[in-house]
Amino acid sequence: MTNQGIPRVVIVGSGFGGLNAAQALAKAPVKITIIDRKNFHTFQPLLYQVATAGLSPGEIAAPIRSILRSHKNIEVLMAEVTGFDLDRRIVETSDTAVSYDYLVVAAGATHSYFGHDNWEPYAPGLKTIEDALEIRRRVLLAFELAERHAAAGESAIPLNFVVVGGGPTGVELAGTLAEISRHALAHEFRSIDPARTHILLVEGGPRVLPAYAEDLSRSAQEQLNRLGVEVRTSTVVTQIEPGAVYAGDTRLPATVVLWAAGVAASPLGKKLGAEVDRAGRVLVQPDLSVPGHPEVFVIGDLAALKDEQGKMLPGVAPVAIQQGRFVAKVIREELGRAAAPPFSRSLRVGGDFGRPTFHYWDKGSLATIGRAAAVAQFGRIHISGFIAWLSWLFVHILFLIGFRNRLLVFIQWAWSYVTYERGARLITGSTYLPGWTPDPQAHSAAAEPAPQEIHAGPAK
Amino acid sequence: MTNQGIPRVVIVGSGFGGLNAAQALAKAPVKITIIDRKNFHTFQPLLYQVATAGLSPGEIAAPIRSILRSHKNIEVLMAEVTGFDLDRRIVETSDTAVSYDYLVVAAGATHSYFGHDNWEPYAPGLKTIEDALEIRRRVLLAFELAERHAAAGESAIPLNFVVVGGGPTGVELAGTLAEISRHALAHEFRSIDPARTHILLVEGGPRVLPAYAEDLSRSAQEQLNRLGVEVRTSTVVTQIEPGAVYAGDTRLPATVVLWAAGVAASPLGKKLGAEVDRAGRVLVQPDLSVPGHPEVFVIGDLAALKDEQGKMLPGVAPVAIQQGRFVAKVIREELGRAAAPPFSRSLRVGGDFGRPTFHYWDKGSLATIGRAAAVAQFGRIHISGFIAWLSWLFVHILFLIGFRNRLLVFIQWAWSYVTYERGARLITGSTYLPGWTPDPQAHSAAAEPAPQEIHAGPAK
Repeated sequence: MTNQGIPRVVIVGSGFGGLNAAQALAKAPVKITIIDRKNFHTFQPLLYQVATAGLSPGEIAAPIRSILRSHKNIEVLMAEVTGFDLDRRIVETSDTAVSYDYLVVAAGATHSYFGHDNWEPYAPGLKTIEDALEIRRRVLLAFELAERHAAAGESAIPLNFVVVGGGPTGVELAGTLAEISRHALAHEFRSIDPARTHILLVEGGPRVLPAYAEDLSRSAQEQLNRLGVEVRTSTVVTQIEPGAVYAGDTRLPATVVLWAAGVAASPLGKKLGAEVDRAGRVLVQPDLSVPGHPEVFVIGDLAALKDEQGKMLPGVAPVAIQQGRFVAKVIREELGRAAAPPFSRSLRVGGDFGRPTFHYWDKGSLATIGRAAAVAQFGRIHISGFIAWLSWLFVHILFLIGFRNRLLVFIQWAWSYVTYERGARLITGSTYLPGWTPDPQAHSAAAEPAPQEIHAGPAK
Repeated sequence: MTNQGIPRVVIVGSGFGGLNAAQALAKAPVKITIIDRKNFHTFQPLLYQVATAGLSPGEIAAPIRSILRSHKNIEVLMAEVTGFDLDRRIVETSDTAVSYDYLVVAAGATHSYFGHDNWEPYAPGLKTIEDALEIRRRVLLAFELAERHAAAGESAIPLNFVVVGGGPTGVELAGTLAEISRHALAHEFRSIDPARTHILLVEGGPRVLPAYAEDLSRSAQEQLNRLGVEVRTSTVVTQIEPGAVYAGDTRLPATVVLWAAGVAASPLGKKLGAEVDRAGRVLVQPDLSVPGHPEVFVIGDLAALKDEQGKMLPGVAPVAIQQGRFVAKVIREELGRAAAPPFSRSLRVGGDFGRPTFHYWDKGSLATIGRAAAVAQFGRIHISGFIAWLSWLFVHILFLIGFRNRLLVFIQWAWSYVTYERGARLITGSTYLPGWTPDPQAHSAAAEPAPQEIHAGPAK
């Protein structure tokens, strides 16, 4: 990659952090390259809606190219970043190397099984569109298998869904599953009664939504119970196998297990060579740069930074968005100054200029639980139920990228709210359900990337 | 399965034929079981829109259960039919057996490689949602790889798309691909020019849309050329390999190959033990029953029947729909008569009653080519261009199942028409593109069902 005097900013990741950094730099005299494994930005707050068949992937994701189309100084590359050479200022991808003057790493996080990666085939997590489609596949398939077995007079398949982890994702998954089984699927089966589905939410700590105030945790648990979800707090999962979850000696039968317990930072954090915390997050400077490398920033879920009260900043969209805009501002200002004496390649980035420090402005938190059920915390103001749910709905549709998506999602929501129906109840891909359909092949191959070619095969 | 005096109708397949048969029997004094490998009905005429990123799968598919929810005498089973025992009147599935008094087999068709199944990994066809997603993946991936190689200054990846087969599917795929490359993707790439994409439509016969009148074939070819598609007729593909298609000695470079050439009936046809034609379609009686088995009907793409002029009925939705309703009527009438003397299990179905013969009412044919481009043939009336396209649009949105889907699809279309954008441009699954990304693992495993578990894996 050449650099004709124009400083080059490379951004790794197109989540909320990366995208906002790119947009905030669009007008600056820089060439921006944004690199992502995927060709689309995923609106993660609504992933659970894809996992629960409420929305289609295309409605919560938008091509990065379309979003940034109008900014001619931004180049989008779909590539897998494999490493960094901070001394030579190079980002290495699977098949090329991209040089930079400034680097912004916003690679985000994935789910962590706390060293029990062998649980993964039996308890999918929810971080990507593919994850969501796999969860949707398993949930819907469980009902189909149960109906089939019942119709054939075979041993019944118990409809036990276990969600591990009582954070926002676990709560919204459990709540929505309860709704589906009691409403969307009611009257559609002849041999089973979906309303009998047992949904269990297991949380290791003493309360759900630990990041919220205690009264809201209580309210959330009550709203979950009202939806028909059994909540077990202070229950640590010690083992997961096909068909069951164990908490110590207690065996919890589980037709489908969903993992919403642990989050780990992207492995790219370690590859920066900087110090990381237990979750793999990079311990950044107050200006979000990597110690010793003022030209390298880490933002979003991949960054570990404490606020004024010494509390670790949460891994939520607003933090990533504000951090993305912050580093863009820092870069713009430095280049402005550097430009005063004509900008030279030998610019010693950062360092010689004092940097501002990042402050997170907490506008409040919203967590949805289900239909007209949610909790909201705006400083001292705590709201529960319908009003909280409305604000959640408003905020999330508002921030969805693309007018078209907003409109489609709004229609889906209005439709679902009136009819209780779910719009995207498709089972695609294999019909293998761990513990219920024997498929050693699919199972043993679980670690391998799926050969997509089979999708082109003739219908069997 | 027991039968308490209530005659039992088993329908295999939930395409247009099976679904219409079931709905037309809903009010009859029968118990209906509809069996399908999938849990959803696919609106096949719009599959190409999913393949070309215009629509999401959820928008052209609806759960069979939802469609038939209100009919209490209809049971839906998601299962793989493995065979039939016509003497014992039993349908065998992967894990159970379903007995019937009447059987309606509407298992449809899939694509055929004319004995060259080894071409499949390099030239996916378009019959299922999975097919469509695989085609979408390859098409979008080709542009991303080309941009990446160009940005890295590596050897350019030529953007050559070859569509094999000039029937309605091939024509709409080629036309839409041309549109995307010239409009939807324009201005979104920095190192390549998508408008330079070369789209080649190869047809073995002397003209495209052979089922239409010659003037419409000419018009279709002109409209394709105007969209930027090169059409080669009387060109028979003799070999397909990664990166190229061969017509005799002529090598046609191909980054992506799409197969729209051959159609073969579902293998279930042969399993009925009746005579089948070269395409594997069952040679049915004028009443659509299987010779010697008046209680077994075959309808839709799986049935081979000639019209009054001795012309084989085409494999299109209207034929399947009319045949589904026809067999439902035959069954209703026979049961009505049979009921006169109290209905007995020993009823000798059909046989003793004279049966009506099926007549196809051809309302005309519509084929779309692209934006405001289509052809329509209503008897002697032949229409081309915008008006034909409008009628195509109207008919297809009108017949889409579910008000919600219709509304969403209409919005998508209006949006795309005004902005030229494509709504569902997501690349999900592997990043393997035959001929361009080396991936022997994915390639060799092509024959195996994809282990979906990997989708649950942590983002890499």
